[in-house]
Amino acid sequence: MGCLEFLKDFFLGFWDYETPKMMVVKDRKLGVIYRAVQFMVITYFIWHVFISQKAYQETETRPESSVYTEMRGVALLEDSIQDTTEYARPSEGGDVISTILRKEVTHDQTQGTCAEHYSVANANCTQDSDCTKGEIDFDGHGQRTGRCVPYYNDTFKTCEIKSWCPIEEHAVVREPALEQAINFTVFIKNNIHFPKFKVLRGNIKSNKPKKLLRCHYHPKTNPYCPVFSLGFIAAQAREKFSELCRTGGIIGVFINWKCDFDMDPSKCIPTYSFRRLDMRKNQPSSGYYYRFAKYYRKDGVEYRTLIKAYGIRLDVIVHGHAGRFSLIPTIISTVTAMTSVGICSIICDWIMLTFIDKNEVFSGKKFDDISKEPSQPITEDLTLTSYGSTHSDLSDGVPL
Amino acid sequence: MGCLEFLKDFFLGFWDYETPKMMVVKDRKLGVIYRAVQFMVITYFIWHVFISQKAYQETETRPESSVYTEMRGVALLEDSIQDTTEYARPSEGGDVISTILRKEVTHDQTQGTCAEHYSVANANCTQDSDCTKGEIDFDGHGQRTGRCVPYYNDTFKTCEIKSWCPIEEHAVVREPALEQAINFTVFIKNNIHFPKFKVLRGNIKSNKPKKLLRCHYHPKTNPYCPVFSLGFIAAQAREKFSELCRTGGIIGVFINWKCDFDMDPSKCIPTYSFRRLDMRKNQPSSGYYYRFAKYYRKDGVEYRTLIKAYGIRLDVIVHGHAGRFSLIPTIISTVTAMTSVGICSIICDWIMLTFIDKNEVFSGKKFDDISKEPSQPITEDLTLTSYGSTHSDLSDGVPL
Amino acid sequence: MGCLEFLKDFFLGFWDYETPKMMVVKDRKLGVIYRAVQFMVITYFIWHVFISQKAYQETETRPESSVYTEMRGVALLEDSIQDTTEYARPSEGGDVISTILRKEVTHDQTQGTCAEHYSVANANCTQDSDCTKGEIDFDGHGQRTGRCVPYYNDTFKTCEIKSWCPIEEHAVVREPALEQAINFTVFIKNNIHFPKFKVLRGNIKSNKPKKLLRCHYHPKTNPYCPVFSLGFIAAQAREKFSELCRTGGIIGVFINWKCDFDMDPSKCIPTYSFRRLDMRKNQPSSGYYYRFAKYYRKDGVEYRTLIKAYGIRLDVIVHGHAGRFSLIPTIISTVTAMTSVGICSIICDWIMLTFIDKNEVFSGKKFDDISKEPSQPITEDLTLTSYGSTHSDLSDGVPL
Repeated sequence: MGCLEFLKDFFLGFWDYETPKMMVVKDRKLGVIYRAVQFMVITYFIWHVFISQKAYQETETRPESSVYTEMRGVALLEDSIQDTTEYARPSEGGDVISTILRKEVTHDQTQGTCAEHYSVANANCTQDSDCTKGEIDFDGHGQRTGRCVPYYNDTFKTCEIKSWCPIEEHAVVREPALEQAINFTVFIKNNIHFPKFKVLRGNIKSNKPKKLLRCHYHPKTNPYCPVFSLGFIAAQAREKFSELCRTGGIIGVFINWKCDFDMDPSKCIPTYSFRRLDMRKNQPSSGYYYRFAKYYRKDGVEYRTLIKAYGIRLDVIVHGHAGRFSLIPTIISTVTAMTSVGICSIICDWIMLTFIDKNEVFSGKKFDDISKEPSQPITEDLTLTSYGSTHSDLSDGVPL
Repeated sequence: MGCLEFLKDFFLGFWDYETPKMMVVKDRKLGVIYRAVQFMVITYFIWHVFISQKAYQETETRPESSVYTEMRGVALLEDSIQDTTEYARPSEGGDVISTILRKEVTHDQTQGTCAEHYSVANANCTQDSDCTKGEIDFDGHGQRTGRCVPYYNDTFKTCEIKSWCPIEEHAVVREPALEQAINFTVFIKNNIHFPKFKVLRGNIKSNKPKKLLRCHYHPKTNPYCPVFSLGFIAAQAREKFSELCRTGGIIGVFINWKCDFDMDPSKCIPTYSFRRLDMRKNQPSSGYYYRFAKYYRKDGVEYRTLIKAYGIRLDVIVHGHAGRFSLIPTIISTVTAMTSVGICSIICDWIMLTFIDKNEVFSGKKFDDISKEPSQPITEDLTLTSYGSTHSDLSDGVPL
Repeated sequence: MGCLEFLKDFFLGFWDYETPKMMVVKDRKLGVIYRAVQFMVITYFIWHVFISQKAYQETETRPESSVYTEMRGVALLEDSIQDTTEYARPSEGGDVISTILRKEVTHDQTQGTCAEHYSVANANCTQDSDCTKGEIDFDGHGQRTGRCVPYYNDTFKTCEIKSWCPIEEHAVVREPALEQAINFTVFIKNNIHFPKFKVLRGNIKSNKPKKLLRCHYHPKTNPYCPVFSLGFIAAQAREKFSELCRTGGIIGVFINWKCDFDMDPSKCIPTYSFRRLDMRKNQPSSGYYYRFAKYYRKDGVEYRTLIKAYGIRLDVIVHGHAGRFSLIPTIISTVTAMTSVGICSIICDWIMLTFIDKNEVFSGKKFDDISKEPSQPITEDLTLTSYGSTHSDLSDGVPL
């Protein structure tokens, strides 16, 4: 065959349409099985993939989010008034904000020498030789001077240390908890942007200027008012507020945006959930506290007031998920669905050939054994004739 | 058939090759339709999946990122010099940094008693009995003492409260905005690591030590200089700087790494974009401010200077996306593409059997109705003969 | 055909089962190739998709995570004791915590006038006219007063500026590094929640109250003790601690949760890895420092102590990945695998028709050319006969 001839053949053949030859089995049992299996597979796919998972949508799961938090509330603690500036830290209003609920204050520490706490290893002493000069115990408060001194106004003695004096354990003043903080509110402004869909959403409505800070969140009546009292948050997280006052705790504020932009974007309203994030079951290690100091100077000497603050830390965590119809995922999901339907054929072929086809009527029809009636002599590189003729009844072998 | 015989049959059959029988329809119309549909599907797939989506690549979308920020600039505000330490908070240089542009300062507050602000509910009074002792108004500044006192130097009276005195609304000093801050710069160092591809990239080049802090970013001429002036940032975010000075605002700094590691990793340079994150349309609630205090002590009494700071908060948000050729996604995408082409066959089969096949030439050839010529008597468990013979012309029924 | 007839036909046809007719090629060469290719594809899929990638699992990659950090340790720096409150910042114990290792302190700055640093552009002067009044150099420290003054106690002169005086470069005191900090420990509590699987895990065990802060992490012997010394962290990140003391640095602490919930969730223990995040190769720009100030007041004048702090910033980054068996991904993966096996048929068809089928035995059998024996006259809208008869040997054209 010449090259030109070949190209012509190829060109003409290119425009032919090829379609598989099918065998129609008029067996109602098989037909019912086939349709039933097909129905189940299709139903499952439509339900799970298209309705439940919305596989026809293009999705965006990592939106750009910005959080601004602001605490509000005033309370009286013993004789002093606590306002936002006093109990909210850090002050910048980011996505992590903590409220101090209880303080253990050590006033007026200075760099100097004083007695080590008696619970520190090897701190108890009776004479100077019991204290190693220059030693720093990891769990202690400073470097030993090598002297043994009376423990503040007590009768026993401990090693003297160079430290911030007096040490916290001795001089600490435990203030009562700020139980009134249960009414403090936190305003959580969250704006979210889905770059793929060019949609910008916020959790507040635009038209109410002053009302905003005075409202209280309610999923039904007030969904656009992200103001939560600490008591509400604790209750939602199933924690006792008084317990939180005692040990402190970290509570996650989850803002969930689940948006379907095939519908009106304005219907995309976030839901809020609250969960305690520091494990509760193991009491010894749960809780939240931190230490900070305020520094003063008097006559050139630096003083500090050390504060061990127990409180609630709110971690605002934003989850966003948005979807919108798109052609490509629809096609891919449909193709996957249709391909899955192919499983039905495999099952039914297997049923047909194994259970129904007792007389090999179907297999004889379905499988055209090429060695049965060779129309032309076969060339040598085919080992087909050599065993094909002897095993002519094996053609119903192994369907995939 | 013996078991040995069966196994032998199975073994020989296992090495047979099965391939579907095809019918070639020499209909040019159909062929053209088939090829055209095929061409469209393939083109779309190659373009969308392989070129646009790069589905042949393994991707990594959550890189490890580290951000370090540093503000620079000096400005004169009234009579005092503002340097970084004064206006940048928090100082640690993390991915959120704020610049104070305008302050409302309340000097020398102490814990004491003073008159409540007149705008607070029920704060106006004429006699002591108008004020409930011990009451704390949520929007007020402290706890009422039960006395009615003159409002500072004014003629009217309000309830006296225990609070940080004097109250902010009365004693606040509004400082002018730090307009010169438009020239302040922020240096944003960002390093990114794609663990899957073991690639580490940074947004600065290694070889210029001192130049770095003095350059200015330009996408073309200076892509490796991540130093941005606040004016540049505001302009890019389409905000007026003077407006930002007045109300404050949160601006997102988006660093986008879109890396194709099939090319040289050094070509992977980030782009920067800026967008205001607190919604702008609703003026009342947009803006950014926070309160903090500086504490002093004089003669054992604690004083604080309360500062309400308006400013720009920059939230640095890093997006990373990297891809590199990998076999498995390529195979999966190719298989999906090829399977999608199967849709063409379904369409063309439908066209052929419905519109073209008027004389049932094709359907007769395509569908081999098994009941037409039963070569052997059919056993009882087949209901096939019972209706098959009467409906012999139904074989061109329902192609999938 | 009547409508009723048609519906009846359709209904009966609907319950027929269609299955493709297959040709069995009894060619062992081809069979071996086919099975070999099939084997390879299946093996690869099972290994890669099912074992290596666990494609039968539903996965969750964005768990809710909460981090709490606490520094511990005491050290002596020159004559003063450094405890947590002094060197750890910010104090709130979030996922970013920094330790100050070296300070450059400028004591007692006040707002006033003093000489500009000589390295600032145009700061050197001999007479007042060299200094432009009101000018603020971006790299300088303040606004020029227009006077030329002696540079502190030196003999040369620079322009006088309004600034925080004395300027940092002149008055700074470089303190030695806190080398003892190598023994400081950081306790990193991390709790993680996979909402999809409703599993909550923490990196500490519940039963050891006081031991916890005293233990040291070891992957084998102490996996539930997330206490790391700074020396350990530096070593793991392959950094010299003394070098870090000098320049500072940002180290990422990666907590990796890789959980397989088909097994017992309690086997899900995190691994820790450490990597320096600010690039190391380019010395000039690597390192970590920040400036902050402590404010004092004396006789109504505000003083500040400016501190340039070099240190280690630890960025705790949590990665979570969990999977559990689920039906849908299993089906989808299986279908994809089975479809991929279809590639084998294409390869083998091509081999068969191109290399083996010299006498067109197979192609004659496989492709039923419909124009060969038209049983009925073809209608006009078929262009089939017009060329079909002349090219009857082209039917083995182009298999897909």
